[in-house]
Amino acid sequence: MPRVNREVREQTVPRQWDTVAIVGVGLIGGSIGLALKRRRLARQVVGIGRRRSSLERARRVGAVDATTLSLPRAISQAELVVFCTPVDTIVEQLPRAAAKASPDTVMTDAGSTKQWIVARLEDALENGGAAFVGSHPLAGSENRGVSAARTDLFEDRVCVVTPTPRTPRKALATVRRFWRALGARVVEMTPQAHDRALARTSHLPHLVAAALASSLPDAYRHLAASGFRDTTRIAAGDPELWTGICRQNRSSLLEAIKEFEHELGKLRRALTDDDMKTLARLLECAKRKRDQLGVNESC
Amino acid sequence: MPRVNREVREQTVPRQWDTVAIVGVGLIGGSIGLALKRRRLARQVVGIGRRRSSLERARRVGAVDATTLSLPRAISQAELVVFCTPVDTIVEQLPRAAAKASPDTVMTDAGSTKQWIVARLEDALENGGAAFVGSHPLAGSENRGVSAARTDLFEDRVCVVTPTPRTPRKALATVRRFWRALGARVVEMTPQAHDRALARTSHLPHLVAAALASSLPDAYRHLAASGFRDTTRIAAGDPELWTGICRQNRSSLLEAIKEFEHELGKLRRALTDDDMKTLARLLECAKRKRDQLGVNESC
Repeated sequence: MPRVNREVREQTVPRQWDTVAIVGVGLIGGSIGLALKRRRLARQVVGIGRRRSSLERARRVGAVDATTLSLPRAISQAELVVFCTPVDTIVEQLPRAAAKASPDTVMTDAGSTKQWIVARLEDALENGGAAFVGSHPLAGSENRGVSAARTDLFEDRVCVVTPTPRTPRKALATVRRFWRALGARVVEMTPQAHDRALARTSHLPHLVAAALASSLPDAYRHLAASGFRDTTRIAAGDPELWTGICRQNRSSLLEAIKEFEHELGKLRRALTDDDMKTLARLLECAKRKRDQLGVNESC
Repeated sequence: MPRVNREVREQTVPRQWDTVAIVGVGLIGGSIGLALKRRRLARQVVGIGRRRSSLERARRVGAVDATTLSLPRAISQAELVVFCTPVDTIVEQLPRAAAKASPDTVMTDAGSTKQWIVARLEDALENGGAAFVGSHPLAGSENRGVSAARTDLFEDRVCVVTPTPRTPRKALATVRRFWRALGARVVEMTPQAHDRALARTSHLPHLVAAALASSLPDAYRHLAASGFRDTTRIAAGDPELWTGICRQNRSSLLEAIKEFEHELGKLRRALTDDDMKTLARLLECAKRKRDQLGVNESC
C-alpha cells in the first residue's frame, strides 16, 4: 500500500475504540500498541504486565499510554482486551479475566495455538460474561520484548481468527475489524484447522531448526554461513514459550514430524542408493514448492 | 572495517595481478570480478562462459573487462584462474584446463565440495602443469546469476583453502593472498576435513530445508510466515548444482543426516512421551547452540 494512502487513512478513519487493554507488552503486544497509537485507533491503550520495568519500557517507546500490574482493574475498564502472553499463560489468565469483564467487553489473543485456549475459555464463559474470539497474527520474530516492536508488524500479514458456533457474531465482527485496522489480512478457520495447519507451517519448522542447531558440532561453528544461520534462526526463540506451544499442539505436531521424516527419508534413500536422478527430482519438487511461496521477503 | 580504511587500502595497495580469468561469471564469479575491479587488484579480468548473453551481462555490470567462450585461450593468458562453475562442471573442466595452462599459472575454484575436485585435479597434474589449490568461499545465496553479484560478497567471510602435501607452497601463498585481498578470512583444512564439516554446516541444511518445503501441503501455503520462509529459503537453490554437491559429498552427508535424525528423534520422543521437561531442556540446548553463532546477521 503506498505511503500516501496510509497517511490519508490514518487521518480520516475515526477513532474506533475508547480503551484497549494489552496483556503482555512484548514484541506482539508492543507492536499492537504502536500500531493503535500511530493509526489513532484508540483513545487510550493500557499495558498490563507482571514487571514494572517492562511496562515502563513499553510506555517510553510509545506503545501504551498507561500501565498497570492489575489485570482485573484493566479488564473492567477496557472495551477490547488483547492477550499477548505466552500460550500457557493465556490459558491461565483468560478464565480469570473473563470473570472480571463486563458483558460488553470483547477479548481476543495472539497465541500460536488455538484449540486449548478457545476450549478453556468457552468453558469459563459458559454462564455468560465477556465474549472471546481466538486470534493468531502470523507475524513475529525470534527477537523478544517491546524493543523489537514495530508499528508495521501486522501490515499485509495474515491474521487467523478462530470463531466457533458459540462465538457471538458481533464480537467476531469487532475482532475482525481490529486486525484489519492494524493492516492485517483476516482469515477465518476453526481452532482445530488452525492448529493442524500451524503445526506444519510454524511448529514443525521450529523443531526442525532446533534439531539442526543441536546437530552442529562446536568445532564447525565458524564454518556455519548464511544457509545454516537462516535455517536455524527460529531455534533462538524462547524455549519456555515453545514448550507451551508444542504441548498444546502435541498431536498435530507429531503428525507433522512424521510427514517431515517421510520426506527426509526419501532424500536419504536416494542418496544411499546413489540414485541421483531421483535426488534431482526431489530437489526440483522442493524448489518448486519453495518458489511458490513467492519472493524471499521477510514476512 | 570502516569505509575510510577500505578506501585508503584500495588506493595504496599495488595491483597484484595482471590477468585474472574467471570461469563461470554468476553470483560468485561476478562478485569476484566486481571486488577485483573495485579494489584495483588486477589489470584485466577475463570472464569465460558458455553463453554470450550472460558474459555480456557480466561485462555490463563491470564484473569483467573482457569475455571469451574459449576456456583454453583464456587459460593460456591468465596468471590466476578461478573456477566458479557448479562442482560437477569444475570436475570436468579442471583437467582440460590444466593441460593448457603454463607452469606459472595458479588455478583455484569456489566449489562447495573439495575431495573429488582436488583428487581429480591432482591426478591430472601428475606430470606437471599448472598448480592448483582448492578453495571454498563461504558466501553466496539462493539467488543466481551475475545480477545478484556484490562487490562485498566476501568481506569478512570465511574462505576455506584445502592444500594437500602435493600443493606447491608458492601457489598456496598466492591463493591465500587472493582471498584475503577480496576481504575474506582464510582458513586452511584438508579436502576431507572440509567435506566432513560442510556436510554438517551447509549440505545437510539444504536437504533439511528441501524436506521441510516438500512437506508443506499446498492448502497451507498462505499460512507460511517468516519462520517457514527462513527455514526453507535455501531449498530454492539450483537443484542441478545441489545434486552435484550431494553426489560428491555423499558419505559425509549420509552421516550428517543420521546425526540430524537422531536429534529430531529426541524431540519427537519427548513429545510422544508428553515429557515437557525433556522437551524444554532440548529446546534450551538448541537455543544456546544457535545463540553461539552470534548475532542474526546475514553472513
